Amino acid sequence: MKIALLQINPIAGDLKGNASKIVQFAKIAKSQRVDIAVTCELALLGYPPRDLLLYTSFIEKAKKSLQVLAQKTKSFSLLLVGTAVKNPNKQGRLLFNTAALLSGGKVKELFYKSLLPTYDVFDEDRYFEPARKAQILKLNDKKVGISICEDLWNDKDFWQRPRYHLDPIDNLSKEKVDLIINLSASPFTLEKQKLREKMIASSAKKYHVPIVYVNQVGGNDDLIFDGASMIFDNKGQLITRARAFQENCLVGDLESPEKQINPYPFQSEEMLFKALKLGLHDYVNKCGFKKVLLGISGGIDSALTATIAVSALGPKNVLGILMPSPFTSNQSIIDAKKLASNLKIKTIAINIEKLMNSYESSLEYSFRGYRKNVAEQNIQARIRGNLLMALANKYSALVLATGNKSELTVGYSTIYGDMVGGLAPIGDLTKTQVYNLARWINRETKIIPEKILTKAPSAELAPNQKDQDDLPPYDLLDQILELHIEKQLGAREIISKGYKTGLVKKVLSMVKKAEFKRRQAPLPLKVTGRAYGSGWRMPIAASQKIF
Amino acid sequence: MKIALLQINPIAGDLKGNASKIVQFAKIAKSQRVDIAVTCELALLGYPPRDLLLYTSFIEKAKKSLQVLAQKTKSFSLLLVGTAVKNPNKQGRLLFNTAALLSGGKVKELFYKSLLPTYDVFDEDRYFEPARKAQILKLNDKKVGISICEDLWNDKDFWQRPRYHLDPIDNLSKEKVDLIINLSASPFTLEKQKLREKMIASSAKKYHVPIVYVNQVGGNDDLIFDGASMIFDNKGQLITRARAFQENCLVGDLESPEKQINPYPFQSEEMLFKALKLGLHDYVNKCGFKKVLLGISGGIDSALTATIAVSALGPKNVLGILMPSPFTSNQSIIDAKKLASNLKIKTIAINIEKLMNSYESSLEYSFRGYRKNVAEQNIQARIRGNLLMALANKYSALVLATGNKSELTVGYSTIYGDMVGGLAPIGDLTKTQVYNLARWINRETKIIPEKILTKAPSAELAPNQKDQDDLPPYDLLDQILELHIEKQLGAREIISKGYKTGLVKKVLSMVKKAEFKRRQAPLPLKVTGRAYGSGWRMPIAASQKIF
Repeated sequence: MKIALLQINPIAGDLKGNASKIVQFAKIAKSQRVDIAVTCELALLGYPPRDLLLYTSFIEKAKKSLQVLAQKTKSFSLLLVGTAVKNPNKQGRLLFNTAALLSGGKVKELFYKSLLPTYDVFDEDRYFEPARKAQILKLNDKKVGISICEDLWNDKDFWQRPRYHLDPIDNLSKEKVDLIINLSASPFTLEKQKLREKMIASSAKKYHVPIVYVNQVGGNDDLIFDGASMIFDNKGQLITRARAFQENCLVGDLESPEKQINPYPFQSEEMLFKALKLGLHDYVNKCGFKKVLLGISGGIDSALTATIAVSALGPKNVLGILMPSPFTSNQSIIDAKKLASNLKIKTIAINIEKLMNSYESSLEYSFRGYRKNVAEQNIQARIRGNLLMALANKYSALVLATGNKSELTVGYSTIYGDMVGGLAPIGDLTKTQVYNLARWINRETKIIPEKILTKAPSAELAPNQKDQDDLPPYDLLDQILELHIEKQLGAREIISKGYKTGLVKKVLSMVKKAEFKRRQAPLPLKVTGRAYGSGWRMPIAASQKIF
Repeated sequence: MKIALLQINPIAGDLKGNASKIVQFAKIAKSQRVDIAVTCELALLGYPPRDLLLYTSFIEKAKKSLQVLAQKTKSFSLLLVGTAVKNPNKQGRLLFNTAALLSGGKVKELFYKSLLPTYDVFDEDRYFEPARKAQILKLNDKKVGISICEDLWNDKDFWQRPRYHLDPIDNLSKEKVDLIINLSASPFTLEKQKLREKMIASSAKKYHVPIVYVNQVGGNDDLIFDGASMIFDNKGQLITRARAFQENCLVGDLESPEKQINPYPFQSEEMLFKALKLGLHDYVNKCGFKKVLLGISGGIDSALTATIAVSALGPKNVLGILMPSPFTSNQSIIDAKKLASNLKIKTIAINIEKLMNSYESSLEYSFRGYRKNVAEQNIQARIRGNLLMALANKYSALVLATGNKSELTVGYSTIYGDMVGGLAPIGDLTKTQVYNLARWINRETKIIPEKILTKAPSAELAPNQKDQDDLPPYDLLDQILELHIEKQLGAREIISKGYKTGLVKKVLSMVKKAEFKRRQAPLPLKVTGRAYGSGWRMPIAASQKIF
């Protein structure tokens, strides 16, 4: 059996564009005489469509698009397309997350998703009714089990604790299917691809059934989809893998002994770089922008962000803004300029001293009698924020925020200041990861000036300020953060791992206090198990002493 | 049977504080010799605890708090407390949303929630495993059905389309219970209390069973809980209603013919005012602030916001900031000052002209050759944002954003400018509702200067600018917005109601384009069926032509 994996990069809500992309990919499949072509999950809508799903008119449009798509692929073999359809029953949620079988110009059959992920970034119980029985397609003399994404992720032999009471794959195996197809939209994280391969291999082997997994590719808001669709044979051997981080129409032949395995960048930094490049590119383009601009401080975060942006958009579409103040060191200016010259991007320099003086005199009366505090520092960051937004408004560019996860976690950043921007490309990377990625980028050519990598990080908002004056050493901080944010441990559990009580309590208290900033932060590109995007839902007006 | 309704105002995550409040209320109940005292849903944790529920250490602390609470109320009669407990089973979600029965110093019995709301602002499938059978407490010779919030909301005779396949109330009635108790945390909206009364009355009558409903009160982030706990007799008659918008320990006697019905402010504007006052008060206080400040422009939005703030916090804790520019009319300054004097609040005036000039000269080179556009206007708004935040940082005050829902919907506001602040008290009110509420406030005394109510609204960011130069008339705009946002209608459906095609398409396009601003907007206090807080989850990098 020949199966085409239509690994497309859809835009949320763009029914027309996504449909024509499916047609284009299906044509390639047709030319290779496949038995069936399969898209990723909700391919017609773009995953995740989120609350667009609450609009009946959108669902009706999707229905029409599906019919048009069926017509346009009339002469093709079978096409299995991910979409959402109305639940015809008189109770339950309004929709089914569906794989629709198109054949001979018609929508022939519908297969529904059983397990609806509702954790981390996922909200599928908000929209969908689950299927309750095995979803089987009869294809010539074969029985093909149809599953959608999460349906594959509940094997009690693989997971310590299954989240659901139903295992759709086990149910399919009881029906003695010859093949299992899975339409997925599985967001990238650093550990995910290894896990997927291990898990799918384990199921294929356990049930002696080949599994075809078709994943979405591309960035949609904070989520990056890495593609790398796969086929495993009934021994659990990987026999086909599509390209990672790019679109691909790949045909797998279950009867052929030839393997066709595209490389996946398993090396952490390479993987991270490719993911962020794709996420940044797609966010900017899908928002309708061509150009971005960002503040270049001479520090590591903006250097890394600029480097990724240039790689994603080309140097002509990236503008670096230098905004030195009296607290900016000469070295920072040198480093920022050198970086821009290495990246071949244009820069604009605006000294903010006069603006600072202007605020100082405007606020002199109101500040009289008060001691200097964080207010004066924040003013500078917000002057820069205002300048960046003004230039973006003038040049029709999108502002990239340059903050990392460590600073956003402990609130070491200024809301409406350095936190302005539509997207925070490295907002889910700890400072440790930022350094590692920068070093990897520099592995051959020193694109990022070495001084940026070696000097002590500083916000330069006060004389001789260093991050380490206010924060614990980043390596320690980042370890505690990972335990608290990703592993969800409380103070006592972290302390029991050998970290000092005072340090842990201080850090967790900073985390809590920064919650209001995260609520209004630009979207970070998710690369870890828990990012401050749609997967982080914390109360703000809450007790200060929870953990 | 005598039942105490412990209608408390908990803080999310404040186990100690919430427990001691429960003890305090239970003491009042004890003095009235009740048979059982009942709290609202998740009372020990504060609703909604959101992702705090993902922390095992927090759940363990809650378990200990519950045991301590049982000890402290040892000599009391039965106490039914809302909390979350670990799911002891080896599969399924990790927690149960629980009513724990405390008696004789011990946790005697646990009753679980069956229906887990996962729509609008609710995410309960994210955390909880549902109960699957009737939850019954035997109390002397009576059978008491225990239900939690949503369990009450799925009657197929009441709702056109039940969301769930299970009806826990119907199941309880089949067990011939003598009474149904419901622990709730039902957020306020303008239509909700009438609906609740109708729905609970209908169930009580249908099943010939009294229903006791205990609701949370207070503001938690974007949600306001209005209290107004109730008892309906087995004929569906309301016999007890606790106070609205304030804490209350109320004892109802099922055998007594005497009714005890506290008033509920059903008049729309009075209801709205009380809700916003409570929401604002609690957000500020639960975030640990005493004081707020806000920009007072002489316009209607800031006038209304200031009036609510003064009512919630007292005039001493509200500071009005006047930030006139060359585009500010004299009338605006007069109106702003008059408002402040009426409200008895202090003001600070900072003219922003010099700051504008400072930005103009700083950006002169970069802007050369470009036409004036929205950039220049946004700079002004962001200067004001910077000043507000600087003053807030200096005075340890919280900034209130003064924007309304109409402008946030169409993007007629400056991100990082007039959109700065921790909370947007009137962020879920259309401009029409803003005027109606202001007129209601002025019904006896003209607290808000009449001129503010009668003059044409203007952002005053350009010479002689009026909102109506850029936007459709507010009454039309607000009608379209309600249809699109609250009723979730697409363009064609709205046009079919008689609105002009061009107008509808223009408005919906503005809505889509403003999505990125809403992602970073301050929390609005939810008062409608669909607010731009946790209940609005739209993709940003999506197609521009969806509806």
